[in-house]
Amino acid sequence: MPARPTLDHILAAAERIRPFAHRTPVLTCAGIDAMCGASLFFKCENFQKVGAFKFRGAANTVFSLTDDEAARGVVTHSSGNHAAALALAARLRGCTARIVMPSNAPAIKKAAVAEYGGIVTYCAPTLEARETATAALIAEHGCVLVHPYDDARIIAGQGTAALELLREQPELDLVMAPVGGGGLLSGTAIAVTELSPRTRVIAAEPERADDAHRSLREKRIVPSVDPDTIADGLLTSLGEQTFPIILARVERIVLVSERGIVAAMRHIWERMKIIVEPSAAVPLGAILEQRIDVSGMRVGIILSGGNVDMEKLPWNV
Amino acid sequence: MPARPTLDHILAAAERIRPFAHRTPVLTCAGIDAMCGASLFFKCENFQKVGAFKFRGAANTVFSLTDDEAARGVVTHSSGNHAAALALAARLRGCTARIVMPSNAPAIKKAAVAEYGGIVTYCAPTLEARETATAALIAEHGCVLVHPYDDARIIAGQGTAALELLREQPELDLVMAPVGGGGLLSGTAIAVTELSPRTRVIAAEPERADDAHRSLREKRIVPSVDPDTIADGLLTSLGEQTFPIILARVERIVLVSERGIVAAMRHIWERMKIIVEPSAAVPLGAILEQRIDVSGMRVGIILSGGNVDMEKLPWNV
Repeated sequence: MPARPTLDHILAAAERIRPFAHRTPVLTCAGIDAMCGASLFFKCENFQKVGAFKFRGAANTVFSLTDDEAARGVVTHSSGNHAAALALAARLRGCTARIVMPSNAPAIKKAAVAEYGGIVTYCAPTLEARETATAALIAEHGCVLVHPYDDARIIAGQGTAALELLREQPELDLVMAPVGGGGLLSGTAIAVTELSPRTRVIAAEPERADDAHRSLREKRIVPSVDPDTIADGLLTSLGEQTFPIILARVERIVLVSERGIVAAMRHIWERMKIIVEPSAAVPLGAILEQRIDVSGMRVGIILSGGNVDMEKLPWNV
Repeated sequence: MPARPTLDHILAAAERIRPFAHRTPVLTCAGIDAMCGASLFFKCENFQKVGAFKFRGAANTVFSLTDDEAARGVVTHSSGNHAAALALAARLRGCTARIVMPSNAPAIKKAAVAEYGGIVTYCAPTLEARETATAALIAEHGCVLVHPYDDARIIAGQGTAALELLREQPELDLVMAPVGGGGLLSGTAIAVTELSPRTRVIAAEPERADDAHRSLREKRIVPSVDPDTIADGLLTSLGEQTFPIILARVERIVLVSERGIVAAMRHIWERMKIIVEPSAAVPLGAILEQRIDVSGMRVGIILSGGNVDMEKLPWNV
């Protein structure tokens, strides 16, 4: 594993995952541009395999393993898109993925992991139970732990989305991404600041899960405590690997209200006719709430994913 | 107005609307392919201007008008996608669009027409009131009536979607489209049978609005009486212009249940992460209900539109 991810790692990741990942489209929308007074370029990771950018990092990691490591398989504790992504990447490599998931995880997430062939181990919904269960699997099978974001291979993989975006739209004034654990954001920040130094990188985060915003302000990792947001991909704290990259390369982190996230999500659904999850709508929400002035700018936005429970849409509650 | 639309009219329409209409993408989905045992190529007219293929025909018609006709403006009676499409096309040409709409039309449709600058005249929700109101506008303003489907310029415009599809995917065994009044289907059928004689054309229609199916069987226009389907774009009867084209060029019309339409729509939303309206899901619904065997085939499907009331999704009722 590389100690610190660099542009070279992102370029290598792009080559490594090319046979497996989609090169997702970059879409524009005249209606939303008019609302923002800017030109927005949406990188559609909702169309990525498993419906989220997470497949990029998972595929880069799994296809970076030695044959010996691959034979022992991979393990992660996650109930979200990373779990499904790791399961699919492992299946494509022909190795086993073990997923430790709290017993109270939503049925839709259990089903997604099972569909991609992941072996699920349930545990009690506590951090301690999760770590114990994971350690037991590593002891028993020798499998390789793949952290959802605090891993240089994951960060390099996630950075390939911004790489593709910049290759298609080199003249961007600003690139925005949502931030949870910071895997997507740190990969994005490396790609953008190295490839296009004049392009700024600004992240967006829910007001009610503002740990990354505070971390950047306080210059230390402020843990995420009781986050309470509809953006369920953004609940975690920054990591030891992601935090310094973000501190060095991200200009600032803007916040957005829950109402703003839902409104932005609905605009994307209604205007662009594409399905994005709440986390993906966070940057546009911040723009529409005028938490950041993008007037006249060319702005790239990473739409992080599209996995939504159709039975529980936020405008039907 | 050309008497009977031909491939040449479709080619001319493609040139005419090129500056105004989107060249929509053709998407594929490994998950849905696996469900169908076929390779499906979805022409995404949900991404078209105003969210539906209707913009193609409307733009072709409006930009075919003489300057004198354009100065007098256009009129139609419709409450659906055609009305919004005509309003936008007229605005782009710099002329007036008058839309006769029943007073009980859904608020969302009134808003769409208003947003694109159409001038709405409300009438009682009867055929007679609609025709009287339309005739009055024509008498007063001399405006040009643009029928939603039974017009050679409209048919030629709608055929440009299949033209683009075949240019991108020439080796198709079959092209499917939904059928309501037959504007999209007849344009599609002309484009496909002329450009690729080996490619079959089959339409799909809701069981509970099966007038086109019966018309093809009885070789006469069977009117649509009390259609009762969620596919609200497919309620109308075939027209004098569309029927003979469909009779000559469409192999057959397969039916699909309401449950099948909703299931197909949900698969497209969940798997492809795109928003389509119920009418657009009708061909895939027929395939998934095995009303037609497409095993091993390469099938083009026109996804006709994506205008859905997000407050009233069929799986939330």
